Amino acid sequence: MAVTREGETESSQFTPNTDPSNTKEFSQTLQSFAESEKVQLSVFSQTLQTPVASQRRHDWVLNVPEPPGLLSNLKTSFKKTLFCPLENKIQCLGKHPVPTLVSILNVIFPPLSWCKEYNVTKFKRDILAGLTLASLCIPQSIGYATLAKLDPQYGLYTSVIPPLIYAMMGSSRDIAIGPVAVVSLLLSSMIPKLEDPTTNPIAYRKLVLTVTFFAGAFQAAFGLLRLGFLVDFLSHAAIVGFMAGAACVIGLQQLKSLLGISNFTNKTDIISVLTSICKSMHTARKYKKLFWLAAMAPLLSVIMSTLLVFLTRADKHGVKIVKHITGGLNPSSLHELQFNSPHTAEAAKIGLIVALVALTEAIAVGRSFATMKGYRLDGNKEMLAMGVMNITGSLTSCYVATGSFSRTAVNFSAGCETAVSNIVMAITVLISLEFCTRLLYFTPVAILASIILSALPGLINISEAKYIWKVDKMDFLTCAAAFLGVLFVSVEIGLLLAVGISFAKIILNSIQPGTEKLGRLPGSDLFGDMEQYPIATTTPGALIVRVKSALLCFANANFIRGRILNLALEEQDEGVMDSANQDRVQLVILDMSNLLNIDTSSIAALEDLQNDLESNGMQLALANPRWHVIHKLRLANFLKKIEGRVFLTIGEAIEACLTSKNMLPI
Amino acid sequence: MAVTREGETESSQFTPNTDPSNTKEFSQTLQSFAESEKVQLSVFSQTLQTPVASQRRHDWVLNVPEPPGLLSNLKTSFKKTLFCPLENKIQCLGKHPVPTLVSILNVIFPPLSWCKEYNVTKFKRDILAGLTLASLCIPQSIGYATLAKLDPQYGLYTSVIPPLIYAMMGSSRDIAIGPVAVVSLLLSSMIPKLEDPTTNPIAYRKLVLTVTFFAGAFQAAFGLLRLGFLVDFLSHAAIVGFMAGAACVIGLQQLKSLLGISNFTNKTDIISVLTSICKSMHTARKYKKLFWLAAMAPLLSVIMSTLLVFLTRADKHGVKIVKHITGGLNPSSLHELQFNSPHTAEAAKIGLIVALVALTEAIAVGRSFATMKGYRLDGNKEMLAMGVMNITGSLTSCYVATGSFSRTAVNFSAGCETAVSNIVMAITVLISLEFCTRLLYFTPVAILASIILSALPGLINISEAKYIWKVDKMDFLTCAAAFLGVLFVSVEIGLLLAVGISFAKIILNSIQPGTEKLGRLPGSDLFGDMEQYPIATTTPGALIVRVKSALLCFANANFIRGRILNLALEEQDEGVMDSANQDRVQLVILDMSNLLNIDTSSIAALEDLQNDLESNGMQLALANPRWHVIHKLRLANFLKKIEGRVFLTIGEAIEACLTSKNMLPI
Repeated sequence: MAVTREGETESSQFTPNTDPSNTKEFSQTLQSFAESEKVQLSVFSQTLQTPVASQRRHDWVLNVPEPPGLLSNLKTSFKKTLFCPLENKIQCLGKHPVPTLVSILNVIFPPLSWCKEYNVTKFKRDILAGLTLASLCIPQSIGYATLAKLDPQYGLYTSVIPPLIYAMMGSSRDIAIGPVAVVSLLLSSMIPKLEDPTTNPIAYRKLVLTVTFFAGAFQAAFGLLRLGFLVDFLSHAAIVGFMAGAACVIGLQQLKSLLGISNFTNKTDIISVLTSICKSMHTARKYKKLFWLAAMAPLLSVIMSTLLVFLTRADKHGVKIVKHITGGLNPSSLHELQFNSPHTAEAAKIGLIVALVALTEAIAVGRSFATMKGYRLDGNKEMLAMGVMNITGSLTSCYVATGSFSRTAVNFSAGCETAVSNIVMAITVLISLEFCTRLLYFTPVAILASIILSALPGLINISEAKYIWKVDKMDFLTCAAAFLGVLFVSVEIGLLLAVGISFAKIILNSIQPGTEKLGRLPGSDLFGDMEQYPIATTTPGALIVRVKSALLCFANANFIRGRILNLALEEQDEGVMDSANQDRVQLVILDMSNLLNIDTSSIAALEDLQNDLESNGMQLALANPRWHVIHKLRLANFLKKIEGRVFLTIGEAIEACLTSKNMLPI
Repeated sequence: MAVTREGETESSQFTPNTDPSNTKEFSQTLQSFAESEKVQLSVFSQTLQTPVASQRRHDWVLNVPEPPGLLSNLKTSFKKTLFCPLENKIQCLGKHPVPTLVSILNVIFPPLSWCKEYNVTKFKRDILAGLTLASLCIPQSIGYATLAKLDPQYGLYTSVIPPLIYAMMGSSRDIAIGPVAVVSLLLSSMIPKLEDPTTNPIAYRKLVLTVTFFAGAFQAAFGLLRLGFLVDFLSHAAIVGFMAGAACVIGLQQLKSLLGISNFTNKTDIISVLTSICKSMHTARKYKKLFWLAAMAPLLSVIMSTLLVFLTRADKHGVKIVKHITGGLNPSSLHELQFNSPHTAEAAKIGLIVALVALTEAIAVGRSFATMKGYRLDGNKEMLAMGVMNITGSLTSCYVATGSFSRTAVNFSAGCETAVSNIVMAITVLISLEFCTRLLYFTPVAILASIILSALPGLINISEAKYIWKVDKMDFLTCAAAFLGVLFVSVEIGLLLAVGISFAKIILNSIQPGTEKLGRLPGSDLFGDMEQYPIATTTPGALIVRVKSALLCFANANFIRGRILNLALEEQDEGVMDSANQDRVQLVILDMSNLLNIDTSSIAALEDLQNDLESNGMQLALANPRWHVIHKLRLANFLKKIEGRVFLTIGEAIEACLTSKNMLPI
């Protein structure tokens, strides 16, 4: 067995991609193998090679091809970004080298890819899921419209057109489109600064529609320009914190509505009913069979409470009711969009924020369910679909729609197969808009508040926050900042804090990176961080350091220079104390294997370091420099200054510098 | 020879830091050596080890000590920052474990370290250098004060007190302290927005002094808080661009003054004289003996032109002259500082910008000469010295002083030994303030403009700009942005652009990092970037990738996941085409050796990647994860999900996964 394994690896090492029938090449391979084996057998360590082999490896390091320049890099990245979607390169290039009409249609309308396999069984499941969805969606839509300070029917409108558009263009099969709590909160917290919804509801609504248009335009633009990565700027931790904060803010707002029903006789009962609903929502996730209860409960509550108010005429005793809801199809709102008002610039800004938050929520939801079912989402296509759906929405009296956390879960649990469930839901909502709005006249406002409240616990993910705390304390900081920012300052500040902290983390990591001492792992030619591998041992006479950063640049080069110099001087002092000048550090090896790039400031710092070390009787050697690094070091003539002290591995550096006679006598 | 070398390396590999007299340890070492040798000899490649050795190495990776937590990290970094200067840790800790009065004094007053060795020879040289410096300093100071829109004497005041303070507290021995062109320009471009220097010169002066106070306070604070790294935020490239831009702006301003001398008879002569002076300045750098000419020329020009104006009374024919310069010692300006004015906040902001620019110039100058002479500068101490000197300056009618590029070069060329040359210069300026200001009455303003002009070419470093272009195109972008920003917009915008681009570069590098395919370097167990090492060969059945970033985080994790997945699918497709399913990629090895940290978002992306790969018939293996990475992967339970597929090296990953029978049948 051992022999076979050996043989296998030998050949895989030395004859990759060669055809054994090519005898000349094969014999060469054999020869090189024999040579290497001799080397391997005659010396102990891998680094101890014949001068020829060592020289050859030296050449590998020094004679690298020129890396692509800035321009060609930019061109490649531009091409990749523009002409090839991130996540389905294969689909757009591999299989269709020349785009056909079908392939283009397939790209624009992803449902075409599954519609051939669509059958009656799947359709039945989708109808079932769509109806379930509608029963949850109708009361939620009315509630969220109220949260966004719009008339109730706008929530319902938003549950008609956007789902239909998404069903045609979107690639997710599970996501449930419509108004959501966080976006409604965002709108109602930012737009009233420009127009007051109570004194001037029509101007407010026009502004909401304009913001919706801008949000859609930004989303579509992100999709077309392939800026899918923008969504990632809100990190997972930030979303967890932001959602929880938003849920708390909405909850506090809704409690006011809920407690406004002072004269309602069964007040406590309703609360307890809703607490149980809210609990059942949670348990339903665990007991899949019970999800019906959770999904239907809001509609049942609405029907029951409306009936109760109608029968007791509690509205005459102070219970606020929804009253008139305009029925009928979505009216056109083209004339309501305002591009010349003094608020247009501000509306565009709000549109951008809302666009990003809506996309983040939708893509987070979409991705998690896609991963569960094993298909892939194209972030850019999703953005385009969301954009088109919101632009269309803004023309048909809808406000910003996106994928809802709670309803998507219900859709999934109800067994949806494709986006057809969204179509079924939209049609159901449309029918209720046409025929049932009168029935909702007596619906108490408090019940809508309760329905919103019941959806909130789903936004607060304590176990995820705990997980973040356990795994990454800095991530938790982002999460906590988003949460507290939203809760105590404002939604925008919370978002800004989260994004700011996330990027500050990246920069901080680059500004003051640590350095680590490397040691040899016993019995190998591998060198590892001495703190990570306590088993690693130092090499007398040499200090091996690595920078904990991918960039040696203006912001950290002097810091690192100081660190390495101090480390070297300390080691030298210790060496002097320990043994009589024998183990004195003569060589500082900088392992550059993780340095991806350097700049002119850092080359200057390296030169200074080399001078400083030399004046203290030490030498600098570089191990394993990467492509751009070695190229720039050559251009800057630094390679000449440390000629002969650039190596492929740390082992070779030790071998060559500590045993060679060229070493300066110190 | 070969045998000795072998023996040496063996012992250095296996018995580092062990005392041979300790027989037990020694025998253990021998045993482990024998074991390893057996392994080495019995198999071909280093990775092909006995199951025991392989298991042992596996344990090294998985059983790492817990890395220090966030709090202990913060504590360490806080301690290091506060209690130990960056660049002379040895001095403050190593040699004086308990601080004595002497050691404290040594830290506060660095000159104490050289004053013992100070002797008459050195003193003579310092006097010579100081006098040379004064001859250049007096006309420059008057010129820069005019540039800063202050009365001429303020320039002279600034050349008295700050150099004296610096000589006591600073650690550089070459730097020449006083007013400089760039800072004067900065003040005169920012402060007039608050107070107009022509209509209200007293209020303007008060504001300048207040700004000076704030600048000093910020500098001292940076020094005390050990924020020395702040200076690095202006990268080398940015400074080159910024200085050149500032020189052009100043030059254009001064040309106006120069061309204002329309009635002066010898106009063209003066220009030609100054052109020659300017040329001689440059050649003087090359011909060290001639630096006298350059250093003395401005003073000589002043004397000659003053005499000429006095004799011809050209001032009556329209030649603008300096007129009255208030003589005498620096007056106190304590009462001129304004901390209650409406401009105080703005003054503090300007103070901060000026403080950073002044420090950047001083430390850049100081460092380059320290490196030349082979001593070390402590950035934090320098900051403290600059801060105290500017605070004291603001109380004694000085404006912001710092280290001057041109005068430091003259000081160095004149053979200065210590900061005593600054004292000599200060005393000389003081004497001229006391006795010679009347002599400057007839000095034409044009000659001051010319002196400023003559110092400008030294700020424009075209060869350095060329070098930056050659080595690093992105750095050149920073340089060009700083230059053009200063030239065409404003000094602050130029600075902001340079700093902004520098940091944007860092962030961009982290957001969309590339991935690289690794291949085996022939005859070794090393894997390198296949583009860098065209000699590297792929391993059939495995795709080895590395992320070109030190952080796998929210901003790039999904991008990288997509990239790796696409790469794997492409390789798989090619494999299928090439040979009948034999070389089909079954294993994707992610080399994590350069990933320093991950966050929860990236762990989620890794989980998704693992799922995506599995559903395409591939497996994910990790090689060489770093300390924090493996720790977080364990906390997140990801290690359990890819149990047995985390390895120390890529070679081991290939060995274990491609030959083991545990591999999923595909």
